[in-house]
Amino acid sequence: MKYGIVIFPSKSLQDKANAYRKRYDTHYALIPPHLTLISSFEEDDDKIKKLADQIRNTAERFSPFQLKVLKFSSFQPVNNVIYMKVESSHEIVDLHEALASIVDRPQEYSFVPHITVGQNLSNDEHSDVYSSLRMQPINHEETVDRFHLLYQLENGQWTVYETFRLGKE
Amino acid sequence: MKYGIVIFPSKSLQDKANAYRKRYDTHYALIPPHLTLISSFEEDDDKIKKLADQIRNTAERFSPFQLKVLKFSSFQPVNNVIYMKVESSHEIVDLHEALASIVDRPQEYSFVPHITVGQNLSNDEHSDVYSSLRMQPINHEETVDRFHLLYQLENGQWTVYETFRLGKE
Repeated sequence: MKYGIVIFPSKSLQDKANAYRKRYDTHYALIPPHLTLISSFEEDDDKIKKLADQIRNTAERFSPFQLKVLKFSSFQPVNNVIYMKVESSHEIVDLHEALASIVDRPQEYSFVPHITVGQNLSNDEHSDVYSSLRMQPINHEETVDRFHLLYQLENGQWTVYETFRLGKE
Repeated sequence: MKYGIVIFPSKSLQDKANAYRKRYDTHYALIPPHLTLISSFEEDDDKIKKLADQIRNTAERFSPFQLKVLKFSSFQPVNNVIYMKVESSHEIVDLHEALASIVDRPQEYSFVPHITVGQNLSNDEHSDVYSSLRMQPINHEETVDRFHLLYQLENGQWTVYETFRLGKE
């Protein structure tokens, strides 16, 4: 089964992201707006409980932290993904690295914390959308106190397997 | 904010449900296949942590239980919802009632455990689909060991707030 680990930001930030995702993100209907901590990886179903236990132990060692979003950005020329840029912090990088060492899978990209609002855009569409969004400040800050382990259904949709609260239990 | 409480069944049952939902369920893109324990209710955002604590205490008092799905059924003539009928058991009814007493909101319908696969169908479409599905046995059984508290975004999509494991912590 395919699994992934994400943060769902607050409803207000998700609503803001969805206003763009609806038009520009081909994954709009597959998952709510999210920040990917660990991108999708294959795991045997009988190992997932043990993995979840390890993730829970890790979550307990961390504390809730601040998440800041100041502007939109793009991964071009690597790809045409447009995203809300999340300010990197040692807390989120440490959390990513702790989870990556548990999951123990090579990650395709280096970790750039972000919330995707557009993907699979044509070059023209990317230019149009990004040239308008890059001028818009966001200026959003919130506390992250939890994250989620998800699995993917055959249709591409993601379902939550378990929630982990930072610093709890 | 609008909240709801659901069970996500196993991937295999969700995949089976999605094969029908894709064509017949207008909520297909808003939430993965689910069994509603408490239908949507309004709650103040600042009360949700306390509510989650109460739900967690309740989840601890319950044990994982078996969920059996034997056939499709329909809520007609009340409405044109077609669903996988989940066999009622004292465990799931007790869990629903314990959660209902915490949430303390009048429930629109009496509790009939089910997984919706079609809704908002015209009468003709309902007849066509249901006459074919009602003859199909399902014969599925699995263990439920968790459920989830969700909130609804402005676009109708549901995001998981927290997972509760039965009999844990």
